[in-house]
Amino acid sequence: MILEVAILNVKTGQSTAFESAFRKAEPIISSMRGYISHDILRCVESSDRFILLVRWERLEDHTEGFRNSPEYLEWKRLLHHFYDPFPIVEHYSALQTVSA
Amino acid sequence: MILEVAILNVKTGQSTAFESAFRKAEPIISSMRGYISHDILRCVESSDRFILLVRWERLEDHTEGFRNSPEYLEWKRLLHHFYDPFPIVEHYSALQTVSA
Repeated sequence: MILEVAILNVKTGQSTAFESAFRKAEPIISSMRGYISHDILRCVESSDRFILLVRWERLEDHTEGFRNSPEYLEWKRLLHHFYDPFPIVEHYSALQTVSA
Repeated sequence: MILEVAILNVKTGQSTAFESAFRKAEPIISSMRGYISHDILRCVESSDRFILLVRWERLEDHTEGFRNSPEYLEWKRLLHHFYDPFPIVEHYSALQTVSA
């Protein structure tokens, strides 16, 4: 499992519109090959900040499969205009077991 | 539920030692009042970067209960010397339902 992490800074005052747009965009990502689950949450300390966590089976399901898909164009159209600055997206994987 | 999010930048070359120390520290946080669950994952793009996600019942379970506890001193002793810079910790909560 790969966890995609994106901290999303939404333009001031547009958070309600962003939340509505995100609800429309959710079925797009949920339908992609390799998608497992996602969470979207709002920051307690900064009300125009969100975190998007998406669990993928493999890194390439996000970086190649989703980003090169026709569906990604609609995802971008719905969401990308809300962000300032544009988010840095990172990926995380479970730790190897280490001896104590 | 409140999600605590901390991006942890570990000093170069100390990630294996950090992982071992984190395994020792896990029972500390897991035993705290209001703790639900946590994940620790390693960044694919930056091998000395980790993300810690902790789910708490209430914000205060982390910001007051844990941080003011005697156990937090041991948590700090085990882990804080690995970080550079010291992490900014944020909290996130689920979205309110919005109309589409």
